[in-house]
Amino acid sequence: MITSMSNQHIKEIKHLKDRKYRSEKSLCYIEGIRIVYEAILQGIDFSEILVSPELSKSDIIKEIQAKAESNGIPITELSKKVFASISTKDGPQGLAAVIKQKWFSLDEVSILPGSLVALYEVADPGNLGTILRTCDGVGASGVILIGNCTDPYDPTAVRASMGAVFSQKTIKSTVEEFRKWVIENSRVVIGTSDHAQIDYRKGNYVSNTILLMGSERQGIPVDLEKICDDIVSIPMRGSCDSLNLAVATSILLYEIYRNIKEKEKE
Amino acid sequence: MITSMSNQHIKEIKHLKDRKYRSEKSLCYIEGIRIVYEAILQGIDFSEILVSPELSKSDIIKEIQAKAESNGIPITELSKKVFASISTKDGPQGLAAVIKQKWFSLDEVSILPGSLVALYEVADPGNLGTILRTCDGVGASGVILIGNCTDPYDPTAVRASMGAVFSQKTIKSTVEEFRKWVIENSRVVIGTSDHAQIDYRKGNYVSNTILLMGSERQGIPVDLEKICDDIVSIPMRGSCDSLNLAVATSILLYEIYRNIKEKEKE
Repeated sequence: MITSMSNQHIKEIKHLKDRKYRSEKSLCYIEGIRIVYEAILQGIDFSEILVSPELSKSDIIKEIQAKAESNGIPITELSKKVFASISTKDGPQGLAAVIKQKWFSLDEVSILPGSLVALYEVADPGNLGTILRTCDGVGASGVILIGNCTDPYDPTAVRASMGAVFSQKTIKSTVEEFRKWVIENSRVVIGTSDHAQIDYRKGNYVSNTILLMGSERQGIPVDLEKICDDIVSIPMRGSCDSLNLAVATSILLYEIYRNIKEKEKE
Repeated sequence: MITSMSNQHIKEIKHLKDRKYRSEKSLCYIEGIRIVYEAILQGIDFSEILVSPELSKSDIIKEIQAKAESNGIPITELSKKVFASISTKDGPQGLAAVIKQKWFSLDEVSILPGSLVALYEVADPGNLGTILRTCDGVGASGVILIGNCTDPYDPTAVRASMGAVFSQKTIKSTVEEFRKWVIENSRVVIGTSDHAQIDYRKGNYVSNTILLMGSERQGIPVDLEKICDDIVSIPMRGSCDSLNLAVATSILLYEIYRNIKEKEKE
């Protein structure tokens, strides 16, 4: 059991809060019963499970620990004090883990069924996590992160995703790589803009549509607008000129889902 | 100009970050050009505008200041250091305000046109603000906060609402008051639940539907389920069992909006 706050391994785990270090190591710190359990269910590659026996009295944690052992996942025990020092929660449950990040290439997603969301420079990790959660809800395949996006392995994104960061595929891409991939694979891309003439309820969606959303601040850049088959808008009746990005993406994803379901019936 | 950090008035403004004090005084601190401008446009009752001339070089701030003066809103000047001490932003723009909270009673909303959202014990201020923003988007009238809800005047809620907290009506209610009001006014209430049999796309919505949403953790309590005309669900295809509360509310609000528009055409 690790009892020293100055333990080198503990220092490294704490350092995972820093995006640069997290990306270099391609690891991610997750905490709490629900999220660790979900990661095991989804067959995520674990680096280790962290348990504080003094804190984790519940039977569920013992069950998770047993499951982890049978899956060959290393388990590190920490004293209550050391666990509290790495915890990101107010009332730590005594269960956390370090998991390996999983990324896919555009070539790998070419053959996947279902819709994909492509996000250009999404900045808010809560928005990204919430979008991943809705992607899971509609049975989409994943999210392509174009340009300088926030990190799906940011603790806020992981929490907001409610585990969908494990079930959804995440892909990093530049504007140019994405453009090339769309053209070479003849993928249908639906963009969105406040000023678009086509109401989102009139869009013509196909089963592997790519829904392209712009950043919270600036929308879709001209380079990417050019490769869109359609650009749609969501009607706004009040004084705000746009919806929250995660909300707009979710409304469109459920519209695409509805549209495809209706076509299947015909 | 206030230059002292220990000024009593400055201490009171800082104290507005505390919900209890904010509610007692029925005031709210807002910061930034966009939000202050929106509050003026919406005719919000201001207590004062706070300006740091050293920080606020932009013409827009001068314009807002002139508009405020002509509206008879008191303007307090603060030194750069004092402004930075009350600021909630990383790069303060030198413009903030204290506004008066505005609440409506259930009786006052009885006569309003348009849909309303009723939220039971919503806990996350970001969710509440985002829901207000979508309410504005669909032209709803406001939000009824039932039971122990988070505060629409929480800085996170105000920010997420993008000014919709000023255009939307907010009402506080107990479960019993809401129940009584719904029955006396024969209002149609649509509830939501993961387990509901009716798909949300099959709901029969009317133009002044009340969309009732449960808390992030527990959904709608039995007492409130009983007064719902219909309980609908949003289909979930993945491993998550629900969507983010603001996302689910927004998808339903746009569905109600669509449904009513289609009926109008018939």
